[in-house]
Amino acid sequence: MHYQLYYWTGLQGRGEFVRLALEDAGARYTDVARVDGDAALQPFLEGRCDGARPFAPPFLRADDLVIAQVANILHFLGPRLDLVPGGEAARLQALQLQLTIADLVTEVHDSHHPIASADYYEDQRDAAKQRAADLRQHRLPKFLGYFEQVVARGGGHALGAHSYVDLSLFQLVRGLDYAYPEAMAALSPRLPGLRALEARVAERPNIAAYLASTRRLPFNTSGIFRHYPELDGAITADTGESS
Amino acid sequence: MHYQLYYWTGLQGRGEFVRLALEDAGARYTDVARVDGDAALQPFLEGRCDGARPFAPPFLRADDLVIAQVANILHFLGPRLDLVPGGEAARLQALQLQLTIADLVTEVHDSHHPIASADYYEDQRDAAKQRAADLRQHRLPKFLGYFEQVVARGGGHALGAHSYVDLSLFQLVRGLDYAYPEAMAALSPRLPGLRALEARVAERPNIAAYLASTRRLPFNTSGIFRHYPELDGAITADTGESS
Repeated sequence: MHYQLYYWTGLQGRGEFVRLALEDAGARYTDVARVDGDAALQPFLEGRCDGARPFAPPFLRADDLVIAQVANILHFLGPRLDLVPGGEAARLQALQLQLTIADLVTEVHDSHHPIASADYYEDQRDAAKQRAADLRQHRLPKFLGYFEQVVARGGGHALGAHSYVDLSLFQLVRGLDYAYPEAMAALSPRLPGLRALEARVAERPNIAAYLASTRRLPFNTSGIFRHYPELDGAITADTGESS
Repeated sequence: MHYQLYYWTGLQGRGEFVRLALEDAGARYTDVARVDGDAALQPFLEGRCDGARPFAPPFLRADDLVIAQVANILHFLGPRLDLVPGGEAARLQALQLQLTIADLVTEVHDSHHPIASADYYEDQRDAAKQRAADLRQHRLPKFLGYFEQVVARGGGHALGAHSYVDLSLFQLVRGLDYAYPEAMAALSPRLPGLRALEARVAERPNIAAYLASTRRLPFNTSGIFRHYPELDGAITADTGESS
């Protein structure tokens, strides 16, 4: 199988969660827009192609299937790339965790775009400062504390063994380190399991090779995880939700 | 199978998407918190129960499985309740559409809570007015226009036949009618397929009986879909995304 991944050029974005799974598994795939340009996405987004119309990228073509939504793509790829344990219960748990990662990713996006996703950050900076403060103080401790417990229960893995969820948790932690270095420095002592998982994923041969390649774009302020120093900051002791 | 649904009392919320599937199929289920109180959710949310820990309600117990995230629950229930067409492609497309519905539901939630989900609406009303204006003017036309095309292609159904996605689209339209009546009145002429689907779902015998029962709570300002008159309003002609 040769997969075709459709995602915007110039940023990691939500496409990166799919890319990491394809790279880790050594799957054959084409990152279509990096070859043909972003215009290659339009016929799908405008509903001019057969099959399920994607609302937004990323989407994946596999034979005659067109599959959108990151968690759905990974749910599809998981068994094919040997990136999810066998059995329905494990697949459901993987999907549940991936959807919870997706919820946090949306909250991270909205921390720099709390008012209108199509408008400039600079035009919603005041609201962004407020939302980012809530993200740092309440939401990150709550979500990351949850994932830390999941990984502790899984013996260092989200699902007891390597899976696409581990790859996505790696990306989540790396993205937050880029966007919110000060907040993550404060939280890290409470996240030993996630930090160990991050290090182990980075050392996987295919991931290490990918991270060292030009295919891995640097994080930047076009993506989901954006570093604006005025949004970062310390976390005070009492988060109320991190215990 | 007797299912146990866990969701907060006093509001429809995200639990309603699951409830509609269980009711439509005539499944046997207990709405646990309505019997035992909201405290019944805590052991699961605090990670003190076996199985996958939910990050948030709703979650469903089915034998020894604990399944969280609405789209994941419906993906699990679909084949069991005969609420999704057969075959992997149809199940993936259903999941994709349900995840896109979930994205809009989150945007609707954030239109009244753009800054901090745990704080009062009244403390973020100014930002809410801005975000709600963007929702009305850009996001609703874009999302609902997408679903309208999906339903048109499906011959009146999201998936070509009745499914849990139709039930969720019904709930989405009803919720938006409650929260944003003026905006929805302006958009409705462009949504004949969704309006026909809504009417057809409401007439399904089990759904009609459910809607007439005390189990169907009225929409209120504790839920996802909230009516605050100051957030509603007209949609100007050029949405830029509705074509």
